[in-house]
Amino acid sequence: MAASLWLRGATKQPAVASLAAVCSRSVASKTPVGFTGVGNMGNPMAKNLMKHGYPLIIYDVFPDACKEFLDAREQVVSSPADVAEKADRIITMLPTSIDEIEAYSGANGILKKVKKGSLLIDSSTIDPVVLKELAKEVEEMGAVFMDAPVSGGVRAAWPANLTFMVGGVAEESAAAAQQLLGCVGGSNVACCGAAWSGQAAKICNNFLLAISKTRTAEAMNLGIRLGPDPKLLAKILNMSSGRCWSSDTYHPVPGVMDGVPSADNYQGGFGTTLMAKDLGLTRDSATSTNSSILLGTQAHQIYRMICVKGSSKKDFSSVFQFLREKETF
Amino acid sequence: MAASLWLRGATKQPAVASLAAVCSRSVASKTPVGFTGVGNMGNPMAKNLMKHGYPLIIYDVFPDACKEFLDAREQVVSSPADVAEKADRIITMLPTSIDEIEAYSGANGILKKVKKGSLLIDSSTIDPVVLKELAKEVEEMGAVFMDAPVSGGVRAAWPANLTFMVGGVAEESAAAAQQLLGCVGGSNVACCGAAWSGQAAKICNNFLLAISKTRTAEAMNLGIRLGPDPKLLAKILNMSSGRCWSSDTYHPVPGVMDGVPSADNYQGGFGTTLMAKDLGLTRDSATSTNSSILLGTQAHQIYRMICVKGSSKKDFSSVFQFLREKETF
Repeated sequence: MAASLWLRGATKQPAVASLAAVCSRSVASKTPVGFTGVGNMGNPMAKNLMKHGYPLIIYDVFPDACKEFLDAREQVVSSPADVAEKADRIITMLPTSIDEIEAYSGANGILKKVKKGSLLIDSSTIDPVVLKELAKEVEEMGAVFMDAPVSGGVRAAWPANLTFMVGGVAEESAAAAQQLLGCVGGSNVACCGAAWSGQAAKICNNFLLAISKTRTAEAMNLGIRLGPDPKLLAKILNMSSGRCWSSDTYHPVPGVMDGVPSADNYQGGFGTTLMAKDLGLTRDSATSTNSSILLGTQAHQIYRMICVKGSSKKDFSSVFQFLREKETF
Repeated sequence: MAASLWLRGATKQPAVASLAAVCSRSVASKTPVGFTGVGNMGNPMAKNLMKHGYPLIIYDVFPDACKEFLDAREQVVSSPADVAEKADRIITMLPTSIDEIEAYSGANGILKKVKKGSLLIDSSTIDPVVLKELAKEVEEMGAVFMDAPVSGGVRAAWPANLTFMVGGVAEESAAAAQQLLGCVGGSNVACCGAAWSGQAAKICNNFLLAISKTRTAEAMNLGIRLGPDPKLLAKILNMSSGRCWSSDTYHPVPGVMDGVPSADNYQGGFGTTLMAKDLGLTRDSATSTNSSILLGTQAHQIYRMICVKGSSKKDFSSVFQFLREKETF
């Protein structure tokens, strides 16, 4: 369940004023929750809901992703529209803006059958412009839309230690939103202010993450070549001012840490393609706000190069491997 | 006093085998300690020694820097050679390789009057190649040399919360080195392995620091323009995977945190010139080890540009101000 963390800055908005009522009713009744997109991140989030006793209505564009929910006797349906028909609270967790448009506005999208008063929570990280347009469509259908992108990755999803960055929610709805997102795996629910602020915070966070991972990989690669043992060097840097989440929790160098993708040939985790996508969103946002992102631009190109070189499905920590491969001297 | 932290990786080296004896004797007797370089960092480190009751022999190339030590009735002398004449333990804390060569090998340098068996601890961050040469000269004079660069900056120096990264010290000397460096302000003393490993770890740390500061400034600048309040955004990012020392301890955005240079127009702290210098050392090390530092190169150029634009004396957090100034649209 979400900790009691609600930050200042929420704006009161008529469009979501009924959220408290929707959440409270739904949480209390334990009626089914719809879940569209049960991939790497959606899977543990949906399972967290199961642990809290919520029946699920599942849809994923890849049938294989639904199989274990079917085995667990959850209801798997054949389109997002069917999810909307059977549930009045739906969570979407999708990889790209194109998937998002298809899931909401497509021929068999959620909006085809969404009921008035339904609560649609989108936890994807997508283009804020697309999100804005979708939210408008949702509200026109008489439903409630909340952007709640998430930080922490797959590792934080399993033990329900996610941070949700929520945009456009009125302060009086705080407790109810906390309760619902707590059941999905949130240990922190942060209200970021006006609508789309959740996406803004998320984009900034992933931008920071890409750079911190790359800088940790660069420094470790250099340091190891200069002499110190990798595990020892990592320990020293983590007790110094160079420390960050990428170095003390999710290290990119094999052999330094157990239970992270670098310990398993960079399988699982957060794919480099997704990171390259998020950095593209950052680039678009920076251009539209006239912001200079010198390191951000470099990091974007690095992640695009990693994909070009064939590691698009590996965890984004594989930037270390990218730096090490095939010395030319 | 230093915590009981001694990391594996130290190599046993005959040249420093007598260190334990030197340290123990000196610490026990509280005979004077020499200190060359009492600038931003050297000043609090020397004062930590005073607090532990050690008489000091002070030298700084700028007489003004010595004034408060003179007022406190410490002995101020007129050259590094004089320091070596009056003390058999000397700590040097100097800004550049040129200052270091002058202080050790100059016409009035330490090596002119160093006594056999003296312990010379260098806490500067300088070119490892220069350091290697100096250490050789020190050992030829029958003295003991230790590279012990420091992390934590001025903010950590005052409350004696520094991390020393020590290279080339035999494991059996661990306790004695901890004791001495603990009195200088170290809460952590990490043995990094073979000689020059202290410098290697320090260079990697400052490289990480420059990038983390710049990425935090870029993300905050972008985020603020996208909507969220700076203080709220910083709080959210610090509880997410984007967190790092630059964001949770030494934030670059004015108004987010008290007691840091960004709260005082970037006065004090760690100057952008010094950061540009350290990034130059990193570039040299990366070239000599055939290591790719894509973000590091970008960060180096950013800090050089900040100096060019007239902010060379400001704290390195001023990269945020650099990104904000004079919009051209």
